Amino acid sequence: MTASLSHEPAIYLSLPELIAMLEAIMLRHGTSDSVARALATNCASAERDGSRSHGLFRMAGYVSNLKSGFVDGRAVPQIQDAGTAFLRADAGNGYARPALEAAMPQAIDKTRSAGACVLAIGNAHHNGPLWLDVEPFAEAGLIALSVVNSVTYVVPHGGHKRLYGTNPMAFAVPRADGQVLLFDQATAAMAHGEVKVAALENKLLPEGTGLDASGLPTSSPQAILDGGALLAFGGHKGSSIAMMIDILGGALTGSNFSHQVNSSAYPGADSAHTGQTIILIDPTKGNGSLRMFTGRIEELVEAMAEAGQTRLPGERRLAARKLAAERGIAIEAETWKQLQAL
Amino acid sequence: MTASLSHEPAIYLSLPELIAMLEAIMLRHGTSDSVARALATNCASAERDGSRSHGLFRMAGYVSNLKSGFVDGRAVPQIQDAGTAFLRADAGNGYARPALEAAMPQAIDKTRSAGACVLAIGNAHHNGPLWLDVEPFAEAGLIALSVVNSVTYVVPHGGHKRLYGTNPMAFAVPRADGQVLLFDQATAAMAHGEVKVAALENKLLPEGTGLDASGLPTSSPQAILDGGALLAFGGHKGSSIAMMIDILGGALTGSNFSHQVNSSAYPGADSAHTGQTIILIDPTKGNGSLRMFTGRIEELVEAMAEAGQTRLPGERRLAARKLAAERGIAIEAETWKQLQAL
Repeated sequence: MTASLSHEPAIYLSLPELIAMLEAIMLRHGTSDSVARALATNCASAERDGSRSHGLFRMAGYVSNLKSGFVDGRAVPQIQDAGTAFLRADAGNGYARPALEAAMPQAIDKTRSAGACVLAIGNAHHNGPLWLDVEPFAEAGLIALSVVNSVTYVVPHGGHKRLYGTNPMAFAVPRADGQVLLFDQATAAMAHGEVKVAALENKLLPEGTGLDASGLPTSSPQAILDGGALLAFGGHKGSSIAMMIDILGGALTGSNFSHQVNSSAYPGADSAHTGQTIILIDPTKGNGSLRMFTGRIEELVEAMAEAGQTRLPGERRLAARKLAAERGIAIEAETWKQLQAL
Repeated sequence: MTASLSHEPAIYLSLPELIAMLEAIMLRHGTSDSVARALATNCASAERDGSRSHGLFRMAGYVSNLKSGFVDGRAVPQIQDAGTAFLRADAGNGYARPALEAAMPQAIDKTRSAGACVLAIGNAHHNGPLWLDVEPFAEAGLIALSVVNSVTYVVPHGGHKRLYGTNPMAFAVPRADGQVLLFDQATAAMAHGEVKVAALENKLLPEGTGLDASGLPTSSPQAILDGGALLAFGGHKGSSIAMMIDILGGALTGSNFSHQVNSSAYPGADSAHTGQTIILIDPTKGNGSLRMFTGRIEELVEAMAEAGQTRLPGERRLAARKLAAERGIAIEAETWKQLQAL
């Protein structure tokens, strides 16, 4: 692997300009209008927020998944009301994000009325960062916790073989200023997208990140990608969380576990045909008013700073977003070339 | 610290015998009948399950918390129906477990009817292992996730001062054989009770467990207890989970954050006056039938074994329980002496 990405920005685009460009690419590869819109907005927003591993870098994957036929770009999500606090969404073998968007208004209404709601999205291919899935709920004044299982990359604690996906979880709560406090983290010692970026950039990974194909510790991202495996973060505790996420993503939604995803009949496909669960809670049911709740969040944020935590989770994302609003989204030369090819 | 616990069993008691003995101790220290029953059953069950850090070892703490007046042993929990999927419980400055038991039947009914339910227990002192709080819900066929915040012991990532509690989380799902698959883990690199046991036994702790009072890494459990701090497991990711748990335990329930617990006016008190949140999900709303869901859990358990995970989370607990059923619960000589003194 000798390719490397240039970091020289070739062009600055506004968010709407970038969305329009990505939308055209999606449409050219056979998605419906609404799917193109949802995916393009999501991918452009990830790039705006400074996520190299979930932004434009993923466009080639979107396209090859669609081309392979593994993902249905014209799927129409089916939303089912399963109880006053439970929504089931069948993504119809399409991407997860359009299903999430289709269910979002009803999920918010249910949470406000019942106090809590679970949205279980099955038969779905998740792509894009999880923080963009929880953020709108927190902007609506709700607490949101989401997990998604993915393709098998992570050995269970003490094991020697891939079993779990990198299985991210994201959590978001509203703040007093209308902003959102959130974190989004892979249960793997490193996110799959970050391993891919490190491989492209020829960077070595920290110890404890993964095993090579023979089950030995390695710091080569390429060795992990070539039949090796990632470790869970934090030993057996991270491994237990990965298990929980495979259960909530796979079993609860009636979808594949990470280790059951099989795209071998679809050359070029690398997406995870799995499930996503979003747990929503209305904080006003627990603590009187939204203002009281967000006031408590500010108390905690202040205490975090006093205890010496110099950077809040999600702070980098907000800084990138602010910069993009001021000067546009910087597109690197290499990426720009790739996008034009698509 | 030169004291050490003898591990020689002095006596074997059945679960009902041990419960009766603990109940008498609780009543002698001023609890109501129902509180005595709930706490004695919970503490004896933890001991039966082999939890040294949450079993009889904690009885002295129960008693001194009650004696100090920090915890109300006669509190009557108030349960409020806040929505079809939200129950609020005010533990009335009593222990959390009686509030959980009072709310449990309604919480199960709501979950089966609505598909999900949040139980937010505030104004509470949690004691005992979290797995005993989630296990009955999974035995009733539900998915249960519970978190509780506690007294401040853990520095946030990159910080130098205690902020979060050891903030455990427990997760349980039903299995096909009527058993439960669960895990229960502190977000701290080590549970507070385990640090106390290590201090009593003069054992050193692994690197990365904590800091001493001057903020330097230490392997002495006593240095951590004497004004030092624990680290979160898994670096910044564990720290983010600790934050989430302080929000769900403290802010959602309208209770103290871990760093706000203050028992200084109650000499001898060491309990956490905080909150506990339990998220319940009915898996039949997501996947058709309980049998289908538990079938998927068995699939995953088999895959875990195939991938080389030789021990399931919670397996040690079930083995201890089985042994206790066969030969009784072994009470060590030193513990037996302490119990008789109480």
